[in-house]
Amino acid sequence: MIRVEEARARILGSLAPTGPETIPLPEGWGRVLAAPVTARLTQPPADMSAMDGYAVRAADATESAVLRVIGSAPAGHPFAGRVGAGEAVRIFTGAPVPAGADGILLQEDAEADGTAVAVRETVRPGRWIRPAGLDFRAGDVLLHPGKRLTARDLGLAAAANHPWLTVHRQPRIGILATGDEIRLPGEPLPAGGIVSSNAHALAALVRAGGGVPLVLPIAADDADAIAMAADSARSCDLVLTTGGASVGEHDLVQQALGPQGFALDFWKIAMRPGKPLIWGRFGDTPLLGLPGNPVSALVCGVLFLQPALSVLSGLPPAPPALQAAVLTAPLPENDRREDYLRATLERGTEGQLLATPADRQDSSMLRILANCHALIRRLPHAAAAKAGDRVEVLELAPLGL
Amino acid sequence: MIRVEEARARILGSLAPTGPETIPLPEGWGRVLAAPVTARLTQPPADMSAMDGYAVRAADATESAVLRVIGSAPAGHPFAGRVGAGEAVRIFTGAPVPAGADGILLQEDAEADGTAVAVRETVRPGRWIRPAGLDFRAGDVLLHPGKRLTARDLGLAAAANHPWLTVHRQPRIGILATGDEIRLPGEPLPAGGIVSSNAHALAALVRAGGGVPLVLPIAADDADAIAMAADSARSCDLVLTTGGASVGEHDLVQQALGPQGFALDFWKIAMRPGKPLIWGRFGDTPLLGLPGNPVSALVCGVLFLQPALSVLSGLPPAPPALQAAVLTAPLPENDRREDYLRATLERGTEGQLLATPADRQDSSMLRILANCHALIRRLPHAAAAKAGDRVEVLELAPLGL
Repeated sequence: MIRVEEARARILGSLAPTGPETIPLPEGWGRVLAAPVTARLTQPPADMSAMDGYAVRAADATESAVLRVIGSAPAGHPFAGRVGAGEAVRIFTGAPVPAGADGILLQEDAEADGTAVAVRETVRPGRWIRPAGLDFRAGDVLLHPGKRLTARDLGLAAAANHPWLTVHRQPRIGILATGDEIRLPGEPLPAGGIVSSNAHALAALVRAGGGVPLVLPIAADDADAIAMAADSARSCDLVLTTGGASVGEHDLVQQALGPQGFALDFWKIAMRPGKPLIWGRFGDTPLLGLPGNPVSALVCGVLFLQPALSVLSGLPPAPPALQAAVLTAPLPENDRREDYLRATLERGTEGQLLATPADRQDSSMLRILANCHALIRRLPHAAAAKAGDRVEVLELAPLGL
Repeated sequence: MIRVEEARARILGSLAPTGPETIPLPEGWGRVLAAPVTARLTQPPADMSAMDGYAVRAADATESAVLRVIGSAPAGHPFAGRVGAGEAVRIFTGAPVPAGADGILLQEDAEADGTAVAVRETVRPGRWIRPAGLDFRAGDVLLHPGKRLTARDLGLAAAANHPWLTVHRQPRIGILATGDEIRLPGEPLPAGGIVSSNAHALAALVRAGGGVPLVLPIAADDADAIAMAADSARSCDLVLTTGGASVGEHDLVQQALGPQGFALDFWKIAMRPGKPLIWGRFGDTPLLGLPGNPVSALVCGVLFLQPALSVLSGLPPAPPALQAAVLTAPLPENDRREDYLRATLERGTEGQLLATPADRQDSSMLRILANCHALIRRLPHAAAAKAGDRVEVLELAPLGL
């Protein structure tokens, strides 16, 4: 049995990001950059007015002066002439400052009268002018590879004149649920049968991590059926199996795939829920085998699949982010397996996170998992904890998990 | 000028959730439930073994006893007979416990020899058996309307035998950028022209909030062009405009839409960046007019559009979530406008969030906005703050913003 950290390091260390593809900018949200975004122009392209008012020569625009208005410069319609001594040009926010002018007389500090404008507040040189290149200059690297694109990033890439972006291809994850006893929702259910929840919960986890799920038909507990199904997922960036990973006689995944070229790295991990976890390579395709138990499958998905998706997507390798919380109930000492307890969270009066472990931690109880907010991590051999002690929690819903 | 809280309350108070639609379960991730998910079966359907081992009568299975193995019950293949005195049935995790048995002899506590098995550890009645209905019972309401579905929720809905889900339709948001000076990325740019960043940054914001953006062609600063463009967005759940909202002569949105039946609610808000903010109704369609300035448009998008998308999507109305952080640099006292300062965040040695305001807060500087992590909220008339003081921050990247 290997430890959680080591298992994750071995998984992440053997994965490489997907290759690049070119996509239109509007499809870039949430995608990961594979090439830098470099400014293709200077922004603003010239000195611009930051306000509505009058472009003037500051030396002329002292309090009580009266200037002659020689034209107008709305945004998008630059004034072609030059502002001379005693002259002003009506200007609007975002319009280029005409040649000759070096200050903006604010609209509220001006009194217009036909073609003349009286100055009510002395203008300072450069005030209310955004100089060319204030935001960025042509050639500046604005966004770096390995960044998941936000709405702000897309605005910046658009402003830098990029109609296209080069991003990592979304990782394609084949999902294979195995088990004689499982059926899809809505299908006829045999005696003792269970409706399959893992494949579609894991598919949602793949979407949450920016991947594209490929849900394969359920394979019976039969080596040939499993081998055939897995074979059809060889073109994926990763194959995920669920079920068939335990120590019983029916742990067929390894037996089925061994003759097909499956090379095992490890298959037992010191954690709860989810001891049986297969990691290896099916030909060139990495294969992660999750337990069949729905809670174990999802918790292992959060701890191993999500970071794997990040690496495949082109992000830096990182464990799931843990936060500090305060226990509201005692916990017994832990054994040698790292434990992930289902817990609800609330905010205390000081704004601190309060974590309450669920009464039952049975790994078949999907309803408790769905209604909880977080997992409490208990390290191997952690001492007994009492109410008020600090623990580390992994919040799930904000990640869509 | 009205305050931010009041503006948001007026916006949210006049919106209603979209109607329901039926979608296949695998498309449910991130969608908002419009009808309860009720269990269509009991889970587990019968008493199930939680482990691999032998189903036995606990009264017989005392240490050193030898039991006769009369059959096998893998998952999905229930044993049809009954376990009698001195008998055992080989059983696997997830298989129904045969009639007559009331305990599980764990595999590691058993010594099998042909058709006999020796007990090495006395079995307790009920131990390692998951009783029928442990997770949920037919008829239980498992998920309630108004919940954004996580991967765990989809697993639970699948386990409860739902191939379909009833969710709120994704709100469709028409986005209209106006301005003579703006062009789309990659298009020929006139002198003094600016590449349009707002429409696609806002479209990404709409996606991040679970909506579907409809980006309209850019409208020139011309009342007819604006009216015609807005008219084509009447079937949307909300129309978003950007630009043309300021106090200058070129604030055309109101003038253009007034004759088309636009009913204004308010259009000035006591905040920075983003004072001009239009809210009203264009016929039956709510209309939110954002400033043309890219930073102002995005900040107003975060503060008003995101909560509006939540309400349209069927979620409870709520302001954006703020967190406590510690300032690393002083801030001057604030005037009467609520201020949202761009800031970077890092973690201190105690795990606390440290917020550093950007040196320049000019609302045209998209690059600074993109590279920041959060907005610091400063309430109207907030007193000067020094390094070490507590502030409230709104973190952006985790929301995809």
